[in-house]
Amino acid sequence: MVKLAVSPLAPAGGFPRLPDIGGVRFASIGARVKYTGRDDVMLAELTPGTTMAGVFTKSATRSAAVLDCQAKIGGVGTGGAAILVNSGNANAFTGSKGQMSVAALTAEVADILGIEATRVFTASTGVIGEPLAHDRIINKLTELRNALSVKAIEPAARAIMTTDTFAKGSGTIVEIDGVKISIAGFAKGSGMIAPDMATMLSYVFTDARISQTVLQEMLRRAVRGSFNSITVDSDTSTSDTLMLAATGASTIPEITDGASAAGQAFYAALKDVLLDLAHQVVRDGEGATKFVEVRVTGAEGEADAHRAALAIANSPLVKTAIAGEDPNWGRVVMAVGKSGARADRDRLAIWFGDILVAENGWVSPDYSEAQGVAYMKNSDVLIGVDLGVGSDVATVWTCDLTHGYIDINTDYRS
Amino acid sequence: MVKLAVSPLAPAGGFPRLPDIGGVRFASIGARVKYTGRDDVMLAELTPGTTMAGVFTKSATRSAAVLDCQAKIGGVGTGGAAILVNSGNANAFTGSKGQMSVAALTAEVADILGIEATRVFTASTGVIGEPLAHDRIINKLTELRNALSVKAIEPAARAIMTTDTFAKGSGTIVEIDGVKISIAGFAKGSGMIAPDMATMLSYVFTDARISQTVLQEMLRRAVRGSFNSITVDSDTSTSDTLMLAATGASTIPEITDGASAAGQAFYAALKDVLLDLAHQVVRDGEGATKFVEVRVTGAEGEADAHRAALAIANSPLVKTAIAGEDPNWGRVVMAVGKSGARADRDRLAIWFGDILVAENGWVSPDYSEAQGVAYMKNSDVLIGVDLGVGSDVATVWTCDLTHGYIDINTDYRS
Repeated sequence: MVKLAVSPLAPAGGFPRLPDIGGVRFASIGARVKYTGRDDVMLAELTPGTTMAGVFTKSATRSAAVLDCQAKIGGVGTGGAAILVNSGNANAFTGSKGQMSVAALTAEVADILGIEATRVFTASTGVIGEPLAHDRIINKLTELRNALSVKAIEPAARAIMTTDTFAKGSGTIVEIDGVKISIAGFAKGSGMIAPDMATMLSYVFTDARISQTVLQEMLRRAVRGSFNSITVDSDTSTSDTLMLAATGASTIPEITDGASAAGQAFYAALKDVLLDLAHQVVRDGEGATKFVEVRVTGAEGEADAHRAALAIANSPLVKTAIAGEDPNWGRVVMAVGKSGARADRDRLAIWFGDILVAENGWVSPDYSEAQGVAYMKNSDVLIGVDLGVGSDVATVWTCDLTHGYIDINTDYRS
Repeated sequence: MVKLAVSPLAPAGGFPRLPDIGGVRFASIGARVKYTGRDDVMLAELTPGTTMAGVFTKSATRSAAVLDCQAKIGGVGTGGAAILVNSGNANAFTGSKGQMSVAALTAEVADILGIEATRVFTASTGVIGEPLAHDRIINKLTELRNALSVKAIEPAARAIMTTDTFAKGSGTIVEIDGVKISIAGFAKGSGMIAPDMATMLSYVFTDARISQTVLQEMLRRAVRGSFNSITVDSDTSTSDTLMLAATGASTIPEITDGASAAGQAFYAALKDVLLDLAHQVVRDGEGATKFVEVRVTGAEGEADAHRAALAIANSPLVKTAIAGEDPNWGRVVMAVGKSGARADRDRLAIWFGDILVAENGWVSPDYSEAQGVAYMKNSDVLIGVDLGVGSDVATVWTCDLTHGYIDINTDYRS
């Protein structure tokens, strides 16, 4: 594999230059679902033969759109496909009315694009429990179709934002068997970010040709170390959706085996893009001022490593200490203790970045509080913990817990 | 049972009038463990024959004092006993030095009171990871002993406070077989409050005579619906301790069977006191402005009911909505969904107090947002959820998540 380009992290307000993906066209529009003066609906049209993969929230109260997507995602269609997403209203916990909205939207999109309704995937994000004014979206479908363009990925990313402060995009170009393959996608956060699934919505596209089962398996694997390893506030949305569409517009032969050289090359590139998007979601966590990596080593089993890392990343006391730039490693000890992961109190070690803070179950003789205080002023913080009982590892990314989070969430609906 | 008195909830700054407990004397003093200008050590001396029960944090990184108490608690001593507690330093994650501090303190207390060190129980609360200056405490032990008084329970309660804004006490007098039995105790919160164990420290005393095994079993049972059903921030301390001491100073015959009439009468009174203390801890949750009861019904199994109630009570999005007086019941749906408890999306019902907000998986036709907004202005808020799949129930108490919590915890150590 020759990696030709990985888009850099999007700066606040900016958006990376992403490669065009043959076989997919985007359009977005303002339908006043809830917001005014901005686009709140995006449509992606996919060329005939596109294979689709998806992973979804495990919430017991998942939305009608998620249930509809889950029912359709395993299907292999030869015709075109489409993705329709609105922001401002989640169409979740809206009973049979919500199901009717999804049915109406998928039928109308299918009709206007001349495809099967079983190949139309929708998502809605925003407030839970209010009926979706789907007619407002349907009234805009003709206009949306007429605006479809391979260049319009950035406005599509912007149309699905809710409390996000910047649009999140990432892409890469890889050369596989002498052919350039492009991957590009976008995501929105930024509250209710927690594993299973982490992001609320993310859509990724490639011009590779990949069989549905292989595509689904690659997505399932790649999400584990990316979107399922980030957390903002431990809450899980009713609507979390990550979809991956392979249009086959490139001239590369179909990938039918993930373990092949081509499959591995594609997987590595896909994982780069998903990780980049996941990190952007954390960086834009509600009220976040710090980007925090929690790296757990020395665990007995991967599950324990992940459990300890998540307990640290989700601890309100750890997250507020980071917000206050307080190197309060005692709270890291507390979080490890409550995680349920096996740990040896007398072999536990803790690092802030490269600074050894604690070892053998107590503060390191070389550690000084001044070192910790200086380190915590960084905008990117690494917390390393060795549990001292095994050799398994896990990494989780999160942000700090600030007044900004409280501001945003005490007043979300007004 | 005739319940003669239950102390009312302590108002902020106030402390209830508690019955004296024959057989226990209290003293407190300022030892400058960390704080200055206030008492930070309390000693309770218990008469010979007192039985002791205790429940402790399940943290894997529990403190040296907790480990010491756990090793001793099952023992049945005939001599006197003592409890020594300091605030300002948790003596947790302090390795072998921490163990030596506990050994030194218990030996000195035993010596000065003329009791066995195996009957001396200690606890420390405050910052984690800093060595405890136990000599400062030892230097004050003679003065503490000389000050012991049956009347000094309130200053003892104040001496163990950390970020608490008021001292928490509760007591009751019950008549069993014609004899008045008194129960009185105190607790401190108010961060790191989560089940297993919920409170950081609580000590309860009675003049009943109860065998150690029965006392331990009663405490274990009573804690389930009280301290293990409250949560402030989902974090669990390394030092959480709840101890119950029965001095036998009353003339009531020994209770050797929890199922006897006398055992049941005592248990009911004990549970009242523990619940009152637990509620006070939540009311004084860091930054709390609202007292929130989450009542889950219609669950399939008690564990599922508790799981759903805790998911709601611990959700940062639910807690910030309550802080903002926003009747955002969609977030309750989200929390139920992520809890892992079995729920029927189409039979889920939600109440705010007596107001039916949602039923049959959607907003109730009779519900108006204005009703919800008005209800949320209450300082005590009840969230009721029926999962629609069974008949099991659970109640959990919590508080809202506010700027005050962020203020306290971004800057705890400075």
